[in-house]
Amino acid sequence: MDLWDLYVIITTQWGRGRETLELVRQALQGGATVIQLREKDWPGRRLVEVGQKIRELTWEAGALFIVNDRIDVALAVEADGAHVGQEDIPPSLARKILGKHKILGVSAGTVEEASEAWRDGADYLGVGSIFPTLTKKDAGEPIGLEGLRAIRRAVPLPLVAIGGIKQENVEEVIRAGADGVAVISAVLAAEDVKEAASRLLATVRRVKSELRGNRDGF
Amino acid sequence: MDLWDLYVIITTQWGRGRETLELVRQALQGGATVIQLREKDWPGRRLVEVGQKIRELTWEAGALFIVNDRIDVALAVEADGAHVGQEDIPPSLARKILGKHKILGVSAGTVEEASEAWRDGADYLGVGSIFPTLTKKDAGEPIGLEGLRAIRRAVPLPLVAIGGIKQENVEEVIRAGADGVAVISAVLAAEDVKEAASRLLATVRRVKSELRGNRDGF
Repeated sequence: MDLWDLYVIITTQWGRGRETLELVRQALQGGATVIQLREKDWPGRRLVEVGQKIRELTWEAGALFIVNDRIDVALAVEADGAHVGQEDIPPSLARKILGKHKILGVSAGTVEEASEAWRDGADYLGVGSIFPTLTKKDAGEPIGLEGLRAIRRAVPLPLVAIGGIKQENVEEVIRAGADGVAVISAVLAAEDVKEAASRLLATVRRVKSELRGNRDGF
Repeated sequence: MDLWDLYVIITTQWGRGRETLELVRQALQGGATVIQLREKDWPGRRLVEVGQKIRELTWEAGALFIVNDRIDVALAVEADGAHVGQEDIPPSLARKILGKHKILGVSAGTVEEASEAWRDGADYLGVGSIFPTLTKKDAGEPIGLEGLRAIRRAVPLPLVAIGGIKQENVEEVIRAGADGVAVISAVLAAEDVKEAASRLLATVRRVKSELRGNRDGF
């Protein structure tokens, strides 16, 4: 399952003054498989206007497009789905509004949250924070690789690890059972966005390929 | 058309420390015909949780329930509809997401905005700001009664006048062509919320009845 390999969350303020669509373009050129739009302070109209352009870019690149929190915006721009956190619309209601053909992602930091999200119709989980992070102030205590492994054992959904992930630790995150990694600053704040994305993706793919090799050897 | 007579917008911070649901209850006891939930800073989950309770209270009272901006929340709590401003999801997309059986309200301050909203599928318009107001910082220059009359002549939709409306000026607003009035502080900041609502409603109904009498006399 390579769909979730590199999940880049676009929060423009982390992009060193570069424009939203420029960040998206470079992340896609670097191979991002998923783009999530997460702009907590933007009014609905701006989310829709920029979202429609991201929709075009992700279609062209063959990447998924997920909107954070605002299910109405996700529907309005024909995104592939929406992602909800523990403070957002509850997953069971989110699923109802989204319809069954859209992707629903849910944030989970514990086995309980993960199991509940699975039961409530999540298609994938954002699992974290794995490590300490600056980009989400309310992220709580990091759950570490052990927390990720526990969720990996508990639910059969694709897991996208999030929180403090960067080139130096992405290998251990994938080895702990993540299907992919979600990043903000590791890509958006890089001098070369495309290259940062490309390096992360290459590592994810190399490690997954090694893990598959091991598994096939059984 | 008495559905829009008294449209009370719930923004809890204007309620002098009283709880959201207490404000809703008292407004309904005072005869509010519409309750709108407008809490710009609340996360989705809180909007849904409180919204579900407002849904119960408005059903019991026979009042409409409209959610500001968040069409996903409106759908999640089975509100009667959603209201979008000029900074929110554009009306044509809002209509698409809401479906044709829900009420779509749109803010309009000019004849152009009003005509466009009508064309895009609005069921009613929030027209204003009529007078200067403290509760909406980005409301722009008041359009006055003359602005309201111009929109009244231009579109056949129900018009809910908003912005600086209180007991002292509600009569002239109705005489200028509004089908009802939307208030925040005139009701929420009153010592007795129920009584403030009740007095406003009585004036709206008296003036509408007088206007109807005049019309019937032609």
